[in-house]
Amino acid sequence: MAVTDRVKQILSWYGSDNVGTKTNLARLMNTGTLAGTGKFVILPVDQGFEHGPVRSFSPNPPSYDPDYHFQLAIDSGCNAYAAPLGFLEVSADKFAGQIPLILKLNNSDTLAKVDQPCSAVTGSVKDALRLGCAAIGYTIYPGSGARNRMYEDLRELILEAKSSGLPTVLWAYPRGAGISKDGETAIDVCAYAAQISAQLGAHVIKIKPPKDFIEQPEAKKAFEKAGIPTKTLADRVRHCVQSAFNGKRIVIFSGGEAKGTEDVLAEVKEIAAGGGFGSIMGRNAFQRPRNEALQLLASVQKIFKDAN
Amino acid sequence: MAVTDRVKQILSWYGSDNVGTKTNLARLMNTGTLAGTGKFVILPVDQGFEHGPVRSFSPNPPSYDPDYHFQLAIDSGCNAYAAPLGFLEVSADKFAGQIPLILKLNNSDTLAKVDQPCSAVTGSVKDALRLGCAAIGYTIYPGSGARNRMYEDLRELILEAKSSGLPTVLWAYPRGAGISKDGETAIDVCAYAAQISAQLGAHVIKIKPPKDFIEQPEAKKAFEKAGIPTKTLADRVRHCVQSAFNGKRIVIFSGGEAKGTEDVLAEVKEIAAGGGFGSIMGRNAFQRPRNEALQLLASVQKIFKDAN
Amino acid sequence: MAVTDRVKQILSWYGSDNVGTKTNLARLMNTGTLAGTGKFVILPVDQGFEHGPVRSFSPNPPSYDPDYHFQLAIDSGCNAYAAPLGFLEVSADKFAGQIPLILKLNNSDTLAKVDQPCSAVTGSVKDALRLGCAAIGYTIYPGSGARNRMYEDLRELILEAKSSGLPTVLWAYPRGAGISKDGETAIDVCAYAAQISAQLGAHVIKIKPPKDFIEQPEAKKAFEKAGIPTKTLADRVRHCVQSAFNGKRIVIFSGGEAKGTEDVLAEVKEIAAGGGFGSIMGRNAFQRPRNEALQLLASVQKIFKDAN
Amino acid sequence: MAVTDRVKQILSWYGSDNVGTKTNLARLMNTGTLAGTGKFVILPVDQGFEHGPVRSFSPNPPSYDPDYHFQLAIDSGCNAYAAPLGFLEVSADKFAGQIPLILKLNNSDTLAKVDQPCSAVTGSVKDALRLGCAAIGYTIYPGSGARNRMYEDLRELILEAKSSGLPTVLWAYPRGAGISKDGETAIDVCAYAAQISAQLGAHVIKIKPPKDFIEQPEAKKAFEKAGIPTKTLADRVRHCVQSAFNGKRIVIFSGGEAKGTEDVLAEVKEIAAGGGFGSIMGRNAFQRPRNEALQLLASVQKIFKDAN
Amino acid sequence: MAVTDRVKQILSWYGSDNVGTKTNLARLMNTGTLAGTGKFVILPVDQGFEHGPVRSFSPNPPSYDPDYHFQLAIDSGCNAYAAPLGFLEVSADKFAGQIPLILKLNNSDTLAKVDQPCSAVTGSVKDALRLGCAAIGYTIYPGSGARNRMYEDLRELILEAKSSGLPTVLWAYPRGAGISKDGETAIDVCAYAAQISAQLGAHVIKIKPPKDFIEQPEAKKAFEKAGIPTKTLADRVRHCVQSAFNGKRIVIFSGGEAKGTEDVLAEVKEIAAGGGFGSIMGRNAFQRPRNEALQLLASVQKIFKDAN
Repeated sequence: MAVTDRVKQILSWYGSDNVGTKTNLARLMNTGTLAGTGKFVILPVDQGFEHGPVRSFSPNPPSYDPDYHFQLAIDSGCNAYAAPLGFLEVSADKFAGQIPLILKLNNSDTLAKVDQPCSAVTGSVKDALRLGCAAIGYTIYPGSGARNRMYEDLRELILEAKSSGLPTVLWAYPRGAGISKDGETAIDVCAYAAQISAQLGAHVIKIKPPKDFIEQPEAKKAFEKAGIPTKTLADRVRHCVQSAFNGKRIVIFSGGEAKGTEDVLAEVKEIAAGGGFGSIMGRNAFQRPRNEALQLLASVQKIFKDAN
Repeated sequence: MAVTDRVKQILSWYGSDNVGTKTNLARLMNTGTLAGTGKFVILPVDQGFEHGPVRSFSPNPPSYDPDYHFQLAIDSGCNAYAAPLGFLEVSADKFAGQIPLILKLNNSDTLAKVDQPCSAVTGSVKDALRLGCAAIGYTIYPGSGARNRMYEDLRELILEAKSSGLPTVLWAYPRGAGISKDGETAIDVCAYAAQISAQLGAHVIKIKPPKDFIEQPEAKKAFEKAGIPTKTLADRVRHCVQSAFNGKRIVIFSGGEAKGTEDVLAEVKEIAAGGGFGSIMGRNAFQRPRNEALQLLASVQKIFKDAN
Repeated sequence: MAVTDRVKQILSWYGSDNVGTKTNLARLMNTGTLAGTGKFVILPVDQGFEHGPVRSFSPNPPSYDPDYHFQLAIDSGCNAYAAPLGFLEVSADKFAGQIPLILKLNNSDTLAKVDQPCSAVTGSVKDALRLGCAAIGYTIYPGSGARNRMYEDLRELILEAKSSGLPTVLWAYPRGAGISKDGETAIDVCAYAAQISAQLGAHVIKIKPPKDFIEQPEAKKAFEKAGIPTKTLADRVRHCVQSAFNGKRIVIFSGGEAKGTEDVLAEVKEIAAGGGFGSIMGRNAFQRPRNEALQLLASVQKIFKDAN
Repeated sequence: MAVTDRVKQILSWYGSDNVGTKTNLARLMNTGTLAGTGKFVILPVDQGFEHGPVRSFSPNPPSYDPDYHFQLAIDSGCNAYAAPLGFLEVSADKFAGQIPLILKLNNSDTLAKVDQPCSAVTGSVKDALRLGCAAIGYTIYPGSGARNRMYEDLRELILEAKSSGLPTVLWAYPRGAGISKDGETAIDVCAYAAQISAQLGAHVIKIKPPKDFIEQPEAKKAFEKAGIPTKTLADRVRHCVQSAFNGKRIVIFSGGEAKGTEDVLAEVKEIAAGGGFGSIMGRNAFQRPRNEALQLLASVQKIFKDAN
Repeated sequence: MAVTDRVKQILSWYGSDNVGTKTNLARLMNTGTLAGTGKFVILPVDQGFEHGPVRSFSPNPPSYDPDYHFQLAIDSGCNAYAAPLGFLEVSADKFAGQIPLILKLNNSDTLAKVDQPCSAVTGSVKDALRLGCAAIGYTIYPGSGARNRMYEDLRELILEAKSSGLPTVLWAYPRGAGISKDGETAIDVCAYAAQISAQLGAHVIKIKPPKDFIEQPEAKKAFEKAGIPTKTLADRVRHCVQSAFNGKRIVIFSGGEAKGTEDVLAEVKEIAAGGGFGSIMGRNAFQRPRNEALQLLASVQKIFKDAN
């Protein structure tokens, strides 16, 4: 497949990566409905691990089956499908070569009570390679007292991945004793999480859509002094993208809890307007009946395509 | 031995595994009374470590001897025999080639008091290979604050095992500060534990028969909304099997404390009716006199065979 | 030296070990006064590390010298001599080939205060090999909150030792927050410690002579139900030996604090009568004047020989 | 480029280093306006990670872009540019060979609350080599209860770096429960931090300009007894340089928070007068408009050049 | 240089060491004024790290320079010079081959507050080898809750050092929650520390001159029962030497804080009279003016020579 100018431009920001890593990054951008646009819609399904199966899959029972998600990601024209080890292991052989895979290397369940949240590393770069993945995924919790542990585990994984030709998609979810509940989606915190992710060497950064709230007093002063607008989601997305190396790292946004189609599309429009590179949409996709999910994902992709 | 269609079907769910691992999985399914059915009855004897020798073996003194369990597993037509390092070391040479072995790689005694339960890793994949085992076994305690440690130790063991051609049998026993005593066998928790196990890459998952109780408020809402039946044990087993990748991972059920033959068989019937893949039965087998144990195991196997 | 039938029988219980490990096990059984009987009297001298030099050696000042213990073990016809790294390093070259050595790989001093007792690993399998040892020694503290650390360190050492042809002698000393002071020598706890040791893969297990006391309520019920006698030390030794895989692992007993010759011999007679495989006798040997020690050890050996 | 006598003299203090490390040290000293003088002005940009993007870059929005800093360091005639992994990865290929790079291997964000401050290791020597860096950077927090962790991580990195031909620049920032807030810049503490850094094997040591305050009572006595002057910053800089092996290690000083040009230059003059080897100036450089930054850095370099 | 009978005798106690290690031990004994006597005077300079530069070096400002200590050790006829990594790195090349070096592999500063004292490992055996050292040095704190960590780090270093031909000098400084302030220099504790050091495999053991005080009640009983004299320092030194394998390990004594020449020499006479193998003298040497230091060290060496 020919590489578009936009894809070439994006690849130019990853000049220090080896050809293998750039090739896989290109694969992500040359797949699906948005191929060639430099935009992304990714299907992530780690909720079975993170929230438990009944909360994740009972709203749409076919989704208990790992094959369901592979097929949905393929048929909906997503750029990639992301999941933990087990989900990929069941179906990867059957769907080999049909869609780029992202192996999520760490995960956290909600059965234990811990003071400082920390995901367990549950997969390896070797797993990603043997399963034919195009990238690894990893979650950090800036704000947790255990964040250094997560950053340091990531350092080893990301170095091994890069030398193996695999780019890294980083889920940056601020949480823990260092920040308030509201602070988890504060604009300063989301932008800071994007910056940390980029500094840690991530190729693609996933954050939550930020709210119009500022957590840190010193950050508040800086926002006011510089007159940075934070009213609209588009404004805030723009600030987050700028905070990821002036837009030279790919920043995509999660959809969060399942909600109505109108709400989803309204949010995505703001993300696209703010220069967001795409959406990573799990529950809003697979918890809907398959036809509705295909329709929704098509609409989302159209928004990003039009925004190009 | 010819491989039946059912065994072929089950193996098809493990498409990402190498031939060695599939071969050992097939060995487990092609052994004993239930050979070819895709059903399992396994004899596990780790109670000497977990509860101490007097509580485990004094009800049936010949069981102090490791040879006893090998012979019982062979004579009763079990699919496999599972035990910690020492038990296998004594007898493995003598019974070499007579029954597939599962080396349980972590164990916990009941002499110490700790806040967050965690099994010690007491064996290795190298041990399993030198002892001629067909699989490794491992225990996780979802709900414990030490669960990440257990998941991460498992990640390394399971990767090494898979590359060495050994499937993994995972004991998933939720416990610890994160859940109540009743919650340890709650239907939502058992199903969640099965899901975690599958996501971690287990080939065979062992959980406890779930009770008609829901631990987590968010799960309760999901059960109610989806109208998932939980009244009978068969209902609950069905939900657990579905939670293990829509039945594409082998889920078997433990027997728990020793009890009357009627109770055991009644429970097994429900497990079989709910689509459970089998039973792993320790104390209810080896604490009975040998003849009674042989009879009981035969009855259990018959139930699973008939349910096929 | 020809191998006796009894030694052959004992070796048959270690069928999973490689030839090197069996050879060293045979060396231990073919040395000294008890050669060929399958019985053991071992001289252990780690008290300098564990209790300090003045408490250990001032009762018999020549014992400050490492050579003293080598010579005593040789002249008294012991099966082996066990000590920490430093003690072996000074004299091993001088006495090379004269007696099998056991390098004790972990040790604990009594200068620090810690909540959860844990020995430090102070030697390695590589050390044992370069010093020409016939076995490694290691201490576990079942009952300590740090026990898992000790079990896991042991797992690595025991695997490396086995692949290097070295059997393992395990000191099993229950202690720590999980059990009472009396519980440290309770019959249920001692037997449990022997079981754990055997499951961890030990070839020779050293426990303390158990008292007629039961620590754990669930164990008490089991003892009563099964009508297991615990009145005499011989009874209790028999239960411990049975708890070590029905006597298929070598269980020997420590002598504890220095005491009168009568008391020592009375205790040893009970151990021998109960089927104990031998004694490991430190302070009662080297804190006596050399001649008395030689006499005492000869008497102890005679008891075991006669009991054969 | 010819090596000046001064550079030769400085290199003579690093006699134990291999040729590769000395070559890179020479590269640092042979670059930019101060080439050949043995003085240093370095541009460090890790504030995006340490303080967050809005506080760091919003005062001068072009600085959100990693290219900006490379170009500023080159155009201003700095000796080197220092940054975390991500910042270097974006632009290193584009600017390859134009300026020596220092990869900062550990970093700390301000989103979490922890008792004992500790930076996470976020890069590796392998990263430094693949990015063509001339040195590694690392931060220690003497005074923190986690300092040993940081020293020990450094030990491994510095040994690997030295054997790979990379010198080490050490940021020594005393902080933590061991010292008061004022103590972080106390003259005794800054000098002690310089000594520790030199003993740990650093080639270049970065400390904060010390204040006229003494934290430790025992140090106070020593200052008084020896009559060491501490009134002027030049006095204190001189003491710090002496404390780094009598000036045989390169000690440079940070600029701290952004401030007026007059204040910056006054401080630099004192540093130069006290024998400081240079300045490492981040926020005072890149938070100014580019032209002002170029002017300021030129003035700073002139002060060091004149002081030669 | 010919090896004297005394040196041969001492080397005979290290029979388990390889030729390389014995060669370096011989180098230490064949250097300086005391060459061939089997006695030692060593110059250690780690106070810059341990107490800070101003307290260490301001009493004699030339001592800020690392070269100063090399030259002092050489000119005063010491057996060896011991220092942390940085101090050796600056000067080792310049003074290569002029005096045996001991690289102190762990160090502790006094800026942080920690409950359980523990030195950080700040150098490696590889460093010692590349710097041409004749031995490694290491500090343990028996009595600290972190002692096991220190013993275990030492185990790895000492094994690597021995296989690389480097003997180990062990600084044994009891301290921590396990013992009182007076107990740090109690005769039972010092002797115990010497025993532990020898058991850990040290070749040369450095302890503090013990006081006439007994810390542990059980030890007190043993001292009394055996009638061991502890009144004079010579008595106590003799007990410590005996506690180090009946004198078969080299035990040397530190000088402690700087004091008057009379006091130093009186203490050394007692050490020599008690059979101590020598002194390791830091602050009392380098904090004096050079000429006085040379005189003092000559007097100390004469005492040990005469005691031979």
